[in-house]
Amino acid sequence: MNLILLEPGEITPDGRARLHDQRARHIVNVLKALPGSQVRVGVIDGGHGVATVIDRAAGSVTLECTIEPGEPARAAVDLLLALPRPKVLRRLWAQIAALGAAQIIVTNAEKVERNYFDTHVLTEACYRPLLLEGLQQARDTRVPVVSIHRQFRVLIEDRLDALFPAGLRLAAHPGSDRSVADVVRKTAHNRVLMAVGPEGGWNTFERQLLAQQGFETVGMGARTLRTDTATIALLALAHAALA
Amino acid sequence: MNLILLEPGEITPDGRARLHDQRARHIVNVLKALPGSQVRVGVIDGGHGVATVIDRAAGSVTLECTIEPGEPARAAVDLLLALPRPKVLRRLWAQIAALGAAQIIVTNAEKVERNYFDTHVLTEACYRPLLLEGLQQARDTRVPVVSIHRQFRVLIEDRLDALFPAGLRLAAHPGSDRSVADVVRKTAHNRVLMAVGPEGGWNTFERQLLAQQGFETVGMGARTLRTDTATIALLALAHAALA
Repeated sequence: MNLILLEPGEITPDGRARLHDQRARHIVNVLKALPGSQVRVGVIDGGHGVATVIDRAAGSVTLECTIEPGEPARAAVDLLLALPRPKVLRRLWAQIAALGAAQIIVTNAEKVERNYFDTHVLTEACYRPLLLEGLQQARDTRVPVVSIHRQFRVLIEDRLDALFPAGLRLAAHPGSDRSVADVVRKTAHNRVLMAVGPEGGWNTFERQLLAQQGFETVGMGARTLRTDTATIALLALAHAALA
Repeated sequence: MNLILLEPGEITPDGRARLHDQRARHIVNVLKALPGSQVRVGVIDGGHGVATVIDRAAGSVTLECTIEPGEPARAAVDLLLALPRPKVLRRLWAQIAALGAAQIIVTNAEKVERNYFDTHVLTEACYRPLLLEGLQQARDTRVPVVSIHRQFRVLIEDRLDALFPAGLRLAAHPGSDRSVADVVRKTAHNRVLMAVGPEGGWNTFERQLLAQQGFETVGMGARTLRTDTATIALLALAHAALA
């Protein structure tokens, strides 16, 4: 936890916040902050700042916060992800948020098992704390916007232009020898939407639909990766290519 | 499992192999291969080939294998990894092997907890099956060579030239704004050794020692990542930069 994230409503008008949860335990047990110590804080979807520890009591910490106003920068990469196994997705939320994604568009695909959509890993109550964990790791305050789409075709044909109006659309496919860097270098866009398919890949219909809606195919050479490994690698490559 | 890996000793002189373990279950339950079906196989640290299913009995499968002779290509990237938490390393072995690393050099650092070295995750009995899992995912046959070094200084000063005699040495450090691609582009080397530090980073002494031994510092921008996320991202960036 390289940044303590606070909900806007947790800060009183005089700038104080009283924490009782794992953030308090982190400040006491990991940062070993004493009264008077300063810690990095941020407001969720808001500014960064510093906080002085005012008081440590059993299980709680009181902070006095000074927050720089300002809108947090939006990550230059969006992710379109065919829903992976719930266990895999649970591990991915924090890693995606740490790497940086302005939005996470979760979709169906032929090779996604239908019952995956019933998982609680797709509920905000599950994923929001995991996204915040990733942001606190990466010192970011801006929570990725998550949307979940059970109908791939409706998403790609009817909704995607509103979700991602301008930017480079890339679809990863094992075996493609066009690299992310090559395709990004040839465009004037400064945003990338990276589509990562299910284990086993997009089917032919899905690939055609993506191509029709402007997605260019990219790959990482001959090796076939697990969804979670591929997602992390492709987000890193997209960020590096745009930097 | 996109490739079934066989130990050289599992194949009889007439090219048959009888499997009883999860590979047999994968062939029957996932690939749904019937007698006469062909599956992709590879020999560990050997060639690729195809195998015909000769017989399926309860819990076992007999294959008739045709293996192309030949040494498997060696990945162009090596990894030097400060020992992460055992739980993290357990999840990383397969992912590192899938991304491709010719060798995995595990080392100590100040911010590595000493008792981590006692974990069974560092025993070959634990990591070899996980490495093979990653190779089977990525359709590779060459097992990364693992070495474990409890003394960072001895490793870097006395052993590294033998382990990595020629190539570009990179050390990842959060906050460095020199990208992997930029540094790789400026060198004539076609191999990279990527050093990934512990959670919390290398200390000043460690960074100086790495610099003295020719390591150049690279980063991935301002975000601080968990060891596992960083390792995957950096391996992907190194491979992409060399491609």
